[in-house]
Amino acid sequence: MSNITLYQWKGSPNSRRVRIFLAEKGLEIAQHPVNLGEGEQRADWYTAINPRRVVPTLVLEDGTAIGEVPAIMRYLDETYPETPLLGTTPKEKAVIAMWERRMELEGFAAVMEAVRNAVPGLKGRALAGPHGYEQIAELAERSRQRVTDFHADLNDRLAGDVFVAGERFSAADITALVAIDFATNALKLGVPDEAANVKRWYGAVSARPSASA
Amino acid sequence: MSNITLYQWKGSPNSRRVRIFLAEKGLEIAQHPVNLGEGEQRADWYTAINPRRVVPTLVLEDGTAIGEVPAIMRYLDETYPETPLLGTTPKEKAVIAMWERRMELEGFAAVMEAVRNAVPGLKGRALAGPHGYEQIAELAERSRQRVTDFHADLNDRLAGDVFVAGERFSAADITALVAIDFATNALKLGVPDEAANVKRWYGAVSARPSASA
Repeated sequence: MSNITLYQWKGSPNSRRVRIFLAEKGLEIAQHPVNLGEGEQRADWYTAINPRRVVPTLVLEDGTAIGEVPAIMRYLDETYPETPLLGTTPKEKAVIAMWERRMELEGFAAVMEAVRNAVPGLKGRALAGPHGYEQIAELAERSRQRVTDFHADLNDRLAGDVFVAGERFSAADITALVAIDFATNALKLGVPDEAANVKRWYGAVSARPSASA
Repeated sequence: MSNITLYQWKGSPNSRRVRIFLAEKGLEIAQHPVNLGEGEQRADWYTAINPRRVVPTLVLEDGTAIGEVPAIMRYLDETYPETPLLGTTPKEKAVIAMWERRMELEGFAAVMEAVRNAVPGLKGRALAGPHGYEQIAELAERSRQRVTDFHADLNDRLAGDVFVAGERFSAADITALVAIDFATNALKLGVPDEAANVKRWYGAVSARPSASA
């Protein structure tokens, strides 16, 4: 493996998306912790790497810093094409990009918004990044509703297909899995019993060895 | 050009991102209007194409419907690799993916959030998609602040480089351009005079023939 390093934190759901991605591809790369519990993402040394002060960041051999999870996934799938998780044909790549993004915007981002606008420790930091924004209680409530709608929509989606983007496991399943665990753990919004398709899919994807990454 | 069709609407900023992308690549494809002014995105015929009821959607020859702008861009750049707008090497692809996404999440999405949570005609539809969510006035205000921060951050970014993702025009410039015009038109938040780098860059990118697409 070439000399690339993932700056990440064990308890960060966005970091977990990349860790599972690496595990599915069988890649082992250097990892460097950024302790979010101690606010290390705002330390000078990390701000120099990622001025947005968020994890994860993938730093390449030449020092180029790649932030944003889909961009990191893109780099890894392009550089190590074995076991593709973002598709192989143009059509497959587009379909997976669409579903991975929908899992993030409708699922993951809704959970994050509900958490950041409600947790007392994030007062004045309702959005990740370098700027301070106040929490909005009404927004946290609306986001919880979105998470409930996400569970229902995903259940509809999985009525016809084995995995989120179709017949093959992909990055879309990774983002959906992390979003669902994040909602369960941080918001106590688990998958409802009536979402039988989600339960079936969740059983399969969470049993993969990569899920513990 | 193969038989693909873009469902889009002239007044939709997300549609404009794809129209500029096509113009930069010199691609002419079939287009079909979805009249958002008359709520045509919620008509049965369009819901069958895109159940999220948003534009644009790219429909392929075999009927596959690709929603979400970055997924549409991905399909077009993979299928028509001439004049690449998403990069050529893995590193370039990742850097452009990162910046295109940041222009969207920090710029475009902030403008959209400010608009949808404030415009009287969007009461009960504060988020695009099939679900109804109430507007939050406090959120519209916070989003306006985010747009102001976006102008400042983009000015910092453009201090060192000609274009958003580096030395070459890319999809990141398209999304930034559309976000800035959207803020100017819909929120009356133009680029402030002190953001001289943004003004220089804006003059260049808005003078390209594609900007009128």
